[in-house]
Amino acid sequence: MPGKGKVTALDLGPDAALEPDNAAYFNKCMEKLGFVPNVLKAYAFDNAKLRAFIAMADDLMLADSGLSKLEREMIAVAVSAVNHCHYCLTAHGAAVRQRAGNPVMGELIVQNYRAANLPARQKAMLDFTVKLTEAPDRIEETDRQGLRDAGLSDRDIWDIAAVAAFYNMSNRLAAATDMRPNDEYHFMMRQRARAEPVSTPRRRR
Amino acid sequence: MPGKGKVTALDLGPDAALEPDNAAYFNKCMEKLGFVPNVLKAYAFDNAKLRAFIAMADDLMLADSGLSKLEREMIAVAVSAVNHCHYCLTAHGAAVRQRAGNPVMGELIVQNYRAANLPARQKAMLDFTVKLTEAPDRIEETDRQGLRDAGLSDRDIWDIAAVAAFYNMSNRLAAATDMRPNDEYHFMMRQRARAEPVSTPRRRR
Amino acid sequence: MPGKGKVTALDLGPDAALEPDNAAYFNKCMEKLGFVPNVLKAYAFDNAKLRAFIAMADDLMLADSGLSKLEREMIAVAVSAVNHCHYCLTAHGAAVRQRAGNPVMGELIVQNYRAANLPARQKAMLDFTVKLTEAPDRIEETDRQGLRDAGLSDRDIWDIAAVAAFYNMSNRLAAATDMRPNDEYHFMMRQRARAEPVSTPRRRR
Amino acid sequence: MPGKGKVTALDLGPDAALEPDNAAYFNKCMEKLGFVPNVLKAYAFDNAKLRAFIAMADDLMLADSGLSKLEREMIAVAVSAVNHCHYCLTAHGAAVRQRAGNPVMGELIVQNYRAANLPARQKAMLDFTVKLTEAPDRIEETDRQGLRDAGLSDRDIWDIAAVAAFYNMSNRLAAATDMRPNDEYHFMMRQRARAEPVSTPRRRR
Amino acid sequence: MPGKGKVTALDLGPDAALEPDNAAYFNKCMEKLGFVPNVLKAYAFDNAKLRAFIAMADDLMLADSGLSKLEREMIAVAVSAVNHCHYCLTAHGAAVRQRAGNPVMGELIVQNYRAANLPARQKAMLDFTVKLTEAPDRIEETDRQGLRDAGLSDRDIWDIAAVAAFYNMSNRLAAATDMRPNDEYHFMMRQRARAEPVSTPRRRR
Amino acid sequence: MPGKGKVTALDLGPDAALEPDNAAYFNKCMEKLGFVPNVLKAYAFDNAKLRAFIAMADDLMLADSGLSKLEREMIAVAVSAVNHCHYCLTAHGAAVRQRAGNPVMGELIVQNYRAANLPARQKAMLDFTVKLTEAPDRIEETDRQGLRDAGLSDRDIWDIAAVAAFYNMSNRLAAATDMRPNDEYHFMMRQRARAEPVSTPRRRR
Repeated sequence: MPGKGKVTALDLGPDAALEPDNAAYFNKCMEKLGFVPNVLKAYAFDNAKLRAFIAMADDLMLADSGLSKLEREMIAVAVSAVNHCHYCLTAHGAAVRQRAGNPVMGELIVQNYRAANLPARQKAMLDFTVKLTEAPDRIEETDRQGLRDAGLSDRDIWDIAAVAAFYNMSNRLAAATDMRPNDEYHFMMRQRARAEPVSTPRRRR
Repeated sequence: MPGKGKVTALDLGPDAALEPDNAAYFNKCMEKLGFVPNVLKAYAFDNAKLRAFIAMADDLMLADSGLSKLEREMIAVAVSAVNHCHYCLTAHGAAVRQRAGNPVMGELIVQNYRAANLPARQKAMLDFTVKLTEAPDRIEETDRQGLRDAGLSDRDIWDIAAVAAFYNMSNRLAAATDMRPNDEYHFMMRQRARAEPVSTPRRRR
Repeated sequence: MPGKGKVTALDLGPDAALEPDNAAYFNKCMEKLGFVPNVLKAYAFDNAKLRAFIAMADDLMLADSGLSKLEREMIAVAVSAVNHCHYCLTAHGAAVRQRAGNPVMGELIVQNYRAANLPARQKAMLDFTVKLTEAPDRIEETDRQGLRDAGLSDRDIWDIAAVAAFYNMSNRLAAATDMRPNDEYHFMMRQRARAEPVSTPRRRR
Repeated sequence: MPGKGKVTALDLGPDAALEPDNAAYFNKCMEKLGFVPNVLKAYAFDNAKLRAFIAMADDLMLADSGLSKLEREMIAVAVSAVNHCHYCLTAHGAAVRQRAGNPVMGELIVQNYRAANLPARQKAMLDFTVKLTEAPDRIEETDRQGLRDAGLSDRDIWDIAAVAAFYNMSNRLAAATDMRPNDEYHFMMRQRARAEPVSTPRRRR
Repeated sequence: MPGKGKVTALDLGPDAALEPDNAAYFNKCMEKLGFVPNVLKAYAFDNAKLRAFIAMADDLMLADSGLSKLEREMIAVAVSAVNHCHYCLTAHGAAVRQRAGNPVMGELIVQNYRAANLPARQKAMLDFTVKLTEAPDRIEETDRQGLRDAGLSDRDIWDIAAVAAFYNMSNRLAAATDMRPNDEYHFMMRQRARAEPVSTPRRRR
Repeated sequence: MPGKGKVTALDLGPDAALEPDNAAYFNKCMEKLGFVPNVLKAYAFDNAKLRAFIAMADDLMLADSGLSKLEREMIAVAVSAVNHCHYCLTAHGAAVRQRAGNPVMGELIVQNYRAANLPARQKAMLDFTVKLTEAPDRIEETDRQGLRDAGLSDRDIWDIAAVAAFYNMSNRLAAATDMRPNDEYHFMMRQRARAEPVSTPRRRR
């Protein structure tokens, strides 16, 4: 169950009595993570808002997609790096470290994905993500075509767009309310991985 | 029922068979508006995504709030003006014209809300909205306090943030997919209003 | 004759006694438009300034040119969209609607010309216009060559530059003085056109 | 009479036969300056355009105003510094050196007027000028009031706005056409002045 | 001794034979850190350049100063966050975690120092740092006075400026050369600290 | 010996007793230039800081390099133009005039190097310099490859990066402290050169 501490700078009144589906979701978080993510606690003053947020977030990040779950977390972090969002960089940085099984990868995307020597598909995916974040009005057909040329389908493009757009939303809700991540995220998957190092410089062609 | 024309630049495959709640929602749109908004048609390839979008949008724009429905539409348009979003400026520009009962007001917010001689509460609301849109990482406690000083409650601040954040999402989904508004919006509430004109210059103090 | 209301936030003293050429011009406006555009009323405190503004504006927008009058209005609006100029978006948005005979086209250029599916010549023309507006110091020979490659002559390039530059001037005079457009512009050419719809998404290549 | 060299990157065809008023103006330039400014040669392909440019420029820079001629040149240079306009920084940088009788002053405004230890009136004037150049859509009544508080009248505000706006136009015409200044400007008023040095650091308060 | 792997994307030829002072410095690094920081290996192709870099860096970060060593590392990270510098965020992020004895603090400064609830002195210090990084031409006497008002001396201001300026240099050298941090930094001071948590939201006033 | 006047807005206490190497350097400046550059006077409160600055600056600007000394000064000025640094534009603008033997060249780089019709190698060098100054996080391998394609070696790329980075540092130290250049720079190499004029417009291809 969510603890006592405030998770935003706003005084939104007492939490609502969680309705059964929301309560079940909180319980599932406790079982799987050992805590309820603070963003859910922040929404807990209103069952309808909490339900809508969970439904959209879970669909985007966990439903079937041509994008892997790691790729969707990479998009979340790339958006949040542009927006310098403390909450999302912490929570989704941890998710990238975990899903990649590589504690350095999360740092790379948090800091500057351009240094991560990503495969062309993922580089194109994050270049689009960052342009969509910084200058949505500049997106043109050539940008979509660039994704297709990198092997992404039109359904993949929708999913890239939808995930990138969603974190442009949640970054701003977090910023506006000074939302705080659970401290637990900072300590997840920090041990040295066995995987080969990723942080070598891009080779000269 | 949604027509045949493509509403985005993406080929997302055939629409899903609408599940009963989604089908009912489309029917309600036909009854009330005479058309189904294209954003809903765009989502119609997937019932879960469509349902989540409807739930969140309706809660934000129609549920009880300290913000009037007109104020929420003004926020939507102010965000979309920063992002130069053709879809949202068209659809929500029409909504501002209608809810304000004033065809000039929508144009003012589409073009530059700073010219609209808004009351202090709404000016503060849109100043916060635009800062949150352009530079979410710069929001500090002084920005929230500015809203409180203009008479807005902490719950109102949440609602401003949530609506502004949502349109930062939907603007980007529209931009990424080249989503097209229904032509009908352009022609709504264009007749001259009886209300006193709003477009006089700000008086010198 | 111009009415009584203030058209800017500045107190510039009484209007000058209009000299014959300026008075004739105001009369011509009344005959053709039914009103004197507020920008002219704003300049009416000084005959020399008014005369110089009229001479330059009329030459740019009405004299012989390789650019059509509609194209020149499109440039005016594209500049004003970058600068979020309430006056010029209102007045020249109406002009695009009228000269295009299409009420949707004006909205598209006001909101984001990149969504307007323009022919290559006009797309190149507005891309140059926007770069010249946002970052004049970045214009290089490749930018001019891009216009030539799209079929524009060197004289056309001068005219694009001169019109775009002029609205960068008048946008700023309007912003600095809080200049107000005549309400009439809002209601011009708002009826549905017979022309085929322009707002379909860009086709996938 | 203007020489043979090209003054822009555009091929605008042969110069027009100058009509008497324009020819007289060119002659006056030769007498007073020893050369015809290249911007006028650039316009010489069309008598009407040349005449309109001369009328507006001379009114703004030379007519009666609450702003001194030096102040108007400072505005021209401050705008051109933001826009990195080679033509205008060269021509109007020379004008500031001459009108100030101080060869260091021109450099200061070209480089960064904030380092020039200007009196409050001129600092306010250039702060407004730069904001109007960079972000015209952000000008609000408080900006105008700031000028009034620094002792400037509403007529002065018009003149600041009109001059700043004009150089936002001419900077862009110069950038779009790669217009070249006369070399003579570089060598004007470069000798050491008798006046006390201006380039001491701002004193600590 | 430095290993074999490339640390930048440039082929700078073989390392120089380290001269005694530089060799001694590398040995000291091995003793204290267990590795030679890659930035030093990058410079190892030239003894003079390496020596000059070490002299400046060590003076700035380790010599006597009114700023604590932690504060100087915070400045380094705040600059690097603006510039999204993978090398410096990794190396100096680790340094902040270590000098603060708090693994969360480093993340906060890497992500967005505005979320760190810093004491007024350090908040003022980093606000100045970020303005100096983003817009050095906008620094005015009021900015320096703001630091004095927060209790910083003129010597402290020099040191803030010098450290912030230095990381604006080293960030760019790292970016230009694709410089790679030693992997060891990622794993330093990641264990949970005993200190009270810092990541609570800013209290409402 | 340095004079009495303050060279920054900071009160850093009395100058240190210059240690022999620093004193010798000041003497060398007096012999060669007739004055001690103010940046060195600014550093004179601390022998270690002064020594480190001299060592790095002299290595970068005077040591052997594939870049000519003029090219290194051009980089210094191109960086300083982006940052609008009064100190460095004055001092290094003079250096470009002198090393080029051409008083117009310095002005061109101060104002906008894109107008200077530079050979491809130097154009590529300054394009990289400006991108590294404005957006270091956007530098990718294609940018380095662009320099190689223009004939620059990897060692040259290091030197471009190191000089550009250094002036990003010194610009910011100057801005933060309101550092003032020696007046002498303004008057150096202002006479008309014999060399052919450089300021002709870029030819149409």
